[in-house]
Amino acid sequence: MKIGALEAGGTKMVCAIGDENGQILDQISVPTTTPDETMPKIIEYFKDKNIEALGIASFGPVDVNKNSPTYGFIVKTPKLAWANYNIVGVMRQAMNVPIGFDTDVNGSLLGEVTWGAAQGLTDVAYITIGTGVGGGILSGGKVVHGMLHPEMGHVKVIPVPGDTYAGKCPFHGNCLEGMAAGPAIRDRWGAPGHELVDKPEVWYYESDYIAQAVVMLILTVSPQRVILGGGVMHQLHLFPLIRRKVAEKLNGYLETRELADLDSYIVPAGCNDDQGIMGAVKLGLDALAEG
Amino acid sequence: MKIGALEAGGTKMVCAIGDENGQILDQISVPTTTPDETMPKIIEYFKDKNIEALGIASFGPVDVNKNSPTYGFIVKTPKLAWANYNIVGVMRQAMNVPIGFDTDVNGSLLGEVTWGAAQGLTDVAYITIGTGVGGGILSGGKVVHGMLHPEMGHVKVIPVPGDTYAGKCPFHGNCLEGMAAGPAIRDRWGAPGHELVDKPEVWYYESDYIAQAVVMLILTVSPQRVILGGGVMHQLHLFPLIRRKVAEKLNGYLETRELADLDSYIVPAGCNDDQGIMGAVKLGLDALAEG
Repeated sequence: MKIGALEAGGTKMVCAIGDENGQILDQISVPTTTPDETMPKIIEYFKDKNIEALGIASFGPVDVNKNSPTYGFIVKTPKLAWANYNIVGVMRQAMNVPIGFDTDVNGSLLGEVTWGAAQGLTDVAYITIGTGVGGGILSGGKVVHGMLHPEMGHVKVIPVPGDTYAGKCPFHGNCLEGMAAGPAIRDRWGAPGHELVDKPEVWYYESDYIAQAVVMLILTVSPQRVILGGGVMHQLHLFPLIRRKVAEKLNGYLETRELADLDSYIVPAGCNDDQGIMGAVKLGLDALAEG
Repeated sequence: MKIGALEAGGTKMVCAIGDENGQILDQISVPTTTPDETMPKIIEYFKDKNIEALGIASFGPVDVNKNSPTYGFIVKTPKLAWANYNIVGVMRQAMNVPIGFDTDVNGSLLGEVTWGAAQGLTDVAYITIGTGVGGGILSGGKVVHGMLHPEMGHVKVIPVPGDTYAGKCPFHGNCLEGMAAGPAIRDRWGAPGHELVDKPEVWYYESDYIAQAVVMLILTVSPQRVILGGGVMHQLHLFPLIRRKVAEKLNGYLETRELADLDSYIVPAGCNDDQGIMGAVKLGLDALAEG
């Protein structure tokens, strides 16, 4: 079975062919410039691959409400060439196969649930901390969408005492993304995270903000596991720091089997950084099943 | 059709008979003292009412996981006589009818979705601000449970500049409940909320903390509507304050049809304060349907 997968990112578009086991059989990457330049290359790639369905996991905000007149559109985005762009419509016209569509981070969540670190679970939170911060939630086996979709990178965090950084988010200053995403680390410390491994103050702040988000999710949607992915989380030494701070912040309020073992509760992504494109395969598989 | 409904609260147990339209046909209230004293009175009430099913919406934390050996128990609670109490088991033995069970706030959420201010919606958040603060979430038409259930009263809030109150929560100090619940108002201002209507500083702080919780929910689970219930929200002048602060805090980041009309988006409960007991009726109806 050959399923097309498009992970539409703000800097590059990953196009791949996957199968029903999430195996990626072939993959290319196209720079994200303008739709006029980028989309023909994507269509060219998929055109002769005999795919049975296509999954698109896209940067956003996107409209994932199937009853909406703008379903399948990238809506408002700072990348103006892509604002109000009907990415699903364009691909459907070109390919004529069932198309599944969701946010990039919901794609990664699906990849982790189907083939990664959350297999067999029904209630899961996935947070990506990289160029931006985003989150996806699985509740009762279903991806949470709501009126739009989660935008949890923009949840406010409480400044850690001693931290005077104002935050990098143009909308909210010191929200989670404004304080903890890769560009915030670079802006605040003058270097990217992987060059700052030996500076404990970097990770003291970073782990606190991420722990705040994890605690917020525990108290709000009560996931059975929290997966932390994205470039910043390649710093695996963050995990024990985050787990310790989560325990401190919960302060014994909740007692569950899952929280009693934080090493298994707060975990790295489990798809070798392929959770996004594998999730797009899963979106395609689901679209095929729905017909 | 006669459905039994038990709204199990920390100070009183409301017992009622309702029908398939959520009409409450009869109702009594029993003080919550100890199980030995309280439970026989509840059983006595329901015993000869010929109910076809029973719904229980309970204070907690409770175990609502049907696969758990302690399903139907009130688990850890400061009301020690009720800790690890099998309330569903005791009622099942006494009544021999299908029993539905959930938290008190999920009961209220269900009442509002079925017969109140959220009819027809699939993604809803309900927050109660009263003696405590709690929240329930409907996602894709299903109540969110996860590993336990939401405990969103304990989400941390950011102190409003100028607010020096340390918060009343024994676990978290200045969490939402610690800053905004009725006891926090009384502790901080020396009087209950309904005697403080003319003090704008009370509502300036109060509305900010509630708005923080609403914004957090919008960014996390993206509800189509947010319902605010509970005793504190009887102060209806809070609603315009909360709506204004939610708009300020979102700062134009999200554009949706729903958020364009905050008067319809952030609303009071719509069941005349009967959402809890009506939700318990719905829990009973659902248990009957499941058999």
